[in-house]
Amino acid sequence: MAELITIDDPDDPRLSDYANLTDVELRRRREPAEGLFIAEGEKVVRRAVQTGYETRSMMLSPKWVDAMRDVIDALPAPVYVVSFELAEQVTGYHVHRGALAAMRRKSLPDAAGILATARRVAVLETVNDHTNVGAVFRSAAALGMDAVLLSPDCADPLYRRSVKVSMGAVFNVPYARLADWPHDLEEVRAAGFTLVALTPAADAVPITEAAPQRLPRVALLLGTEGAGLSARALRAADQRVRIPMSNGVDSLNVGAAAAVAFYAVATAPAAG
Amino acid sequence: MAELITIDDPDDPRLSDYANLTDVELRRRREPAEGLFIAEGEKVVRRAVQTGYETRSMMLSPKWVDAMRDVIDALPAPVYVVSFELAEQVTGYHVHRGALAAMRRKSLPDAAGILATARRVAVLETVNDHTNVGAVFRSAAALGMDAVLLSPDCADPLYRRSVKVSMGAVFNVPYARLADWPHDLEEVRAAGFTLVALTPAADAVPITEAAPQRLPRVALLLGTEGAGLSARALRAADQRVRIPMSNGVDSLNVGAAAAVAFYAVATAPAAG
Repeated sequence: MAELITIDDPDDPRLSDYANLTDVELRRRREPAEGLFIAEGEKVVRRAVQTGYETRSMMLSPKWVDAMRDVIDALPAPVYVVSFELAEQVTGYHVHRGALAAMRRKSLPDAAGILATARRVAVLETVNDHTNVGAVFRSAAALGMDAVLLSPDCADPLYRRSVKVSMGAVFNVPYARLADWPHDLEEVRAAGFTLVALTPAADAVPITEAAPQRLPRVALLLGTEGAGLSARALRAADQRVRIPMSNGVDSLNVGAAAAVAFYAVATAPAAG
Repeated sequence: MAELITIDDPDDPRLSDYANLTDVELRRRREPAEGLFIAEGEKVVRRAVQTGYETRSMMLSPKWVDAMRDVIDALPAPVYVVSFELAEQVTGYHVHRGALAAMRRKSLPDAAGILATARRVAVLETVNDHTNVGAVFRSAAALGMDAVLLSPDCADPLYRRSVKVSMGAVFNVPYARLADWPHDLEEVRAAGFTLVALTPAADAVPITEAAPQRLPRVALLLGTEGAGLSARALRAADQRVRIPMSNGVDSLNVGAAAAVAFYAVATAPAAG
């Protein structure tokens, strides 16, 4: 059972995992280097614990101690009880969800391990916005994607904002980084996957015609908001498909495009 | 041609349209009451002008004057040129897009007018988050929805954040408010629409089986994140359909669910 420790000094070193949470650049460097990530909110903290992440500590405002009692009772890590004001001083923001946990990262699987068993994977190129990464993971979990592969410059799925937007789906959907981009896409193809690139280009095949749901193993390549997939990634793909769109509209948000593509690849639709 | 007026006093009353943009509650009351909304960023401002909204004024930092020269030349409204720092003082935030316009609202069409010509409409109940409203409009524009109808408690599509997330789609997709909820859904049905309610409920018909793309006129009912559609709205619907989801995942984000549903209703898929 966890030890409950009341802290009233914002500079107490035991709270250092929670310091300056709004400094994106600082946290982006610090968290992977220290093998740390932050889970925020009761639901997300519970999911992190349930999916086997090890807790370094929790930081709760007093009213959350009762709500999280069962988690606390099973926790072999300290729980710091702090006032609402202190939480704000330490983190730099208004912690309206009141429950934070500092968790230990696991080592990521390699892509080969994931590709050996998956049938539907999303491959993200340069999706460097934490909200978009979280949204893609949430939809991937809901719509039956088996895994996510990330180009080296994608945002961190375990960054606080990604975790929150994903509603904890980043804990459930296996993911790996491809180190050599786009060269490592060859590894995906060699594992039996058809590489299907999503693009708004007018000469791409409508996804309804391409019918990726019929393929035994599909890797859906999704690019960043705005620029889309790079020319190199498009060249590396087996097919270029597009979501049919209305005249004059350039594109969907990457989260919306991912949801539609995941649905299309998951679903054997009734005849139209 | 617009008059260029340099202002260096943050309390200059000519800038009052732009004051305290980060005070959501204040702006939520003030903007509809004054028939005002704010467009932010070059692309969004251009779309607002192109789609026929009248400009009350623009507020630009000096470097945007050249980029927006063609808009300024055609504008019968004052353009206030302010320093980056002054823009921040007035609005309360770091205006990194550098171009703001105060626009005049148009009177909304009534639902009857929209329903007379539309074939696919989205009906939102209690979607009170500006980001979600913006995301729904962006997907609606891209995926061929003809219009959006809003329950009385939905967030304002012309609030700055909705406009921005929609990428200006709120200017292109006609929308109306249903005043008497859910009673006015009868008006939608009377106009020849089948009311299709989206719900994660396990006993709803999978959307692939329901095949809403075959219906001549479809109104897709979408509820808020979390609670989903109210029992009253579900009762008012002709069909309850669900997006097939993986075990153990409760739901998609409302923006993702909307994108999938709009795609499903727009698309006559190839046989699976």
